[in-house]
Amino acid sequence: MDFIKDLQKITEHKPLIHHITNWVTIYDCANITRAVGALPIMSHAPEEVAEMTALSSALVLNIGTLTSELVDSMKIAGKKANELNRPVVLDAVGAGATKMRTQKTKELLSDLSISVIKGNAGEVATIAGIAAEVKGVESISVAGDIVEIARGCAQNEKSIVVVTGQEDIVTDGQRTFLIRNGHELMGKVVGTGCMLASILGAFAAVATDLTQAAANAVLFYDIAGELAAELSQGPGTFREHFIDQIYQLRHSSYPERQKVTFV
Amino acid sequence: MDFIKDLQKITEHKPLIHHITNWVTIYDCANITRAVGALPIMSHAPEEVAEMTALSSALVLNIGTLTSELVDSMKIAGKKANELNRPVVLDAVGAGATKMRTQKTKELLSDLSISVIKGNAGEVATIAGIAAEVKGVESISVAGDIVEIARGCAQNEKSIVVVTGQEDIVTDGQRTFLIRNGHELMGKVVGTGCMLASILGAFAAVATDLTQAAANAVLFYDIAGELAAELSQGPGTFREHFIDQIYQLRHSSYPERQKVTFV
Amino acid sequence: MDFIKDLQKITEHKPLIHHITNWVTIYDCANITRAVGALPIMSHAPEEVAEMTALSSALVLNIGTLTSELVDSMKIAGKKANELNRPVVLDAVGAGATKMRTQKTKELLSDLSISVIKGNAGEVATIAGIAAEVKGVESISVAGDIVEIARGCAQNEKSIVVVTGQEDIVTDGQRTFLIRNGHELMGKVVGTGCMLASILGAFAAVATDLTQAAANAVLFYDIAGELAAELSQGPGTFREHFIDQIYQLRHSSYPERQKVTFV
Repeated sequence: MDFIKDLQKITEHKPLIHHITNWVTIYDCANITRAVGALPIMSHAPEEVAEMTALSSALVLNIGTLTSELVDSMKIAGKKANELNRPVVLDAVGAGATKMRTQKTKELLSDLSISVIKGNAGEVATIAGIAAEVKGVESISVAGDIVEIARGCAQNEKSIVVVTGQEDIVTDGQRTFLIRNGHELMGKVVGTGCMLASILGAFAAVATDLTQAAANAVLFYDIAGELAAELSQGPGTFREHFIDQIYQLRHSSYPERQKVTFV
Repeated sequence: MDFIKDLQKITEHKPLIHHITNWVTIYDCANITRAVGALPIMSHAPEEVAEMTALSSALVLNIGTLTSELVDSMKIAGKKANELNRPVVLDAVGAGATKMRTQKTKELLSDLSISVIKGNAGEVATIAGIAAEVKGVESISVAGDIVEIARGCAQNEKSIVVVTGQEDIVTDGQRTFLIRNGHELMGKVVGTGCMLASILGAFAAVATDLTQAAANAVLFYDIAGELAAELSQGPGTFREHFIDQIYQLRHSSYPERQKVTFV
Repeated sequence: MDFIKDLQKITEHKPLIHHITNWVTIYDCANITRAVGALPIMSHAPEEVAEMTALSSALVLNIGTLTSELVDSMKIAGKKANELNRPVVLDAVGAGATKMRTQKTKELLSDLSISVIKGNAGEVATIAGIAAEVKGVESISVAGDIVEIARGCAQNEKSIVVVTGQEDIVTDGQRTFLIRNGHELMGKVVGTGCMLASILGAFAAVATDLTQAAANAVLFYDIAGELAAELSQGPGTFREHFIDQIYQLRHSSYPERQKVTFV
């Protein structure tokens, strides 16, 4: 797997990535989008979201601090993206934690055609209708094999499913990548989940093979995390070195670090 | 005083800390909550806040960028926390600066049972009905001895009161701790006040003696600040080293740094 | 040009800078305001914005994540600032990108007296009614000479106009400063545009000659960026070193770095 070509395309085309996201990590999502070479735009007013999506090459939706009004804006933007055949990434933050989050996730999935669903094991299991124990936005346990659940979810939703965890899973229901890269510090910093959705959006914006691009995005992200962790003394300094690596890794490849299984 | 046992309990139980907070420091509050070993959840939609509070071990409220709607969500969440006997921390940012902030603070204090009130001298004096000069969210001067004002406030509100400043005060109206730890750089970075409320929430979530836990939380916080300042060249680098120290200080104690008076 | 006197006045008077801004860079705007020695207050509730502006020495408006309600609050605050003769800085983020942004920018400019308009070339051209190609919040190209466009815009709007780019322009329609300081890393980090508006607000709050103060602010900002870039490995570490430099540069001058043309 080689993500350098994806990065070159992002650098060349500077795709605009429209986000309707949460108020916690909105800065981090914008900043990593720019660090990887794309252009972020964060906009949620119902009066302008369709126009902004039409200007963009991908749409990233995140329900981390959802309200009904914000989800309404996501639906407007998502319909425009579908109409124009632009990829849509959904980060289903906290699906399963409250009735509202589960319900709104279902509405987005039924109203829109979502290209990439990203979540932790509990969130993806919730979408698949499988019992899961979640604690706020953390996944505690799921009933069953998460790789199989993800694969079934991808088939049902006709979407690529990305499950983050110690082992990351990328599947379109047929092809499945298991990626064991990354570093435990990534789980100690708020925003690493959300920022991955931005990176998935940037890779999707320039992709021809969306499944391969999603797997490349996750591998790139995890290797940047490994390199940043080597420079960091804790989650505070990690945050800044991680952005540096996302920015610098564009200029070289790290094939020897790759820990990927294709199943 | 030894805060290591509190930190061990937080690490062991990973309490979920529900925040309804401001849009300026919402990332920092979430990030420090995770750095100390707890799990942050930021959620403010009126449809889900009661359910999210019910899942949580403590509730942290902050009126830094209040609106009427946000305060309404705080009341819903706060009532659920009271019903379930979960600790509630209120950071009364800017009480005294505008009529709205003073009024909304009073409403929260009269509608809810607040476990810990945190503010600077001007904010706490405002709550106590004492004349204070505030400048935005900064305290300039108060009429009277702030230790006595805090003690009286704690008795009236049946709450623990934490006053931040060069000398931090923790009092339940009977027992009073004066803590002279910390570093001036903490006052040069936005968010150090708000993040302390998150740490107070995490300590309260696992506490048996809430007053002692609040004092331990402040001491821990201040010592982490001292250690971070030694590694920093200014408020920018301080911010990241501070999170590192909050994360690392869990593994050792610094009793020799303690500058605490119990009165 | 010497910005040290401006910095000394800011440090001495600690002016309160009221922001009604976007949810992406709201932390960064508050943090840089404090780093330069002023006091930030972020507040947008319609019930309190007039009172908060009345307490403040300058008002900074930014439409980065605008909604109709937020712009309504900007108008209330702006009218109070005009009434009390306090400087108002407008950061017209994304003007030209959507109909809503262009329309709301025009409304703010017609309803309020704006002291300093800040934007990139595309945003300022849009305000001036000149054709411009924008991509989200990035300026791609404008029809005509941007220095002339800025000068005309300043005359029409009776405002100081600050255009950011590889060469920054500060003009009141008569006097024009071209500033070629700064570093390319500043364009790779989200928030450097927004933070400049905060610095312009702090300089304006203590200024006698507003045009000179705006030029000094831009020069100071750019030189801080150059110094920070020398310490950084990428946009992540740059962000923190930049705040350090904004904080430290108060104590010395760097006249030899100055690359300014007065035309």
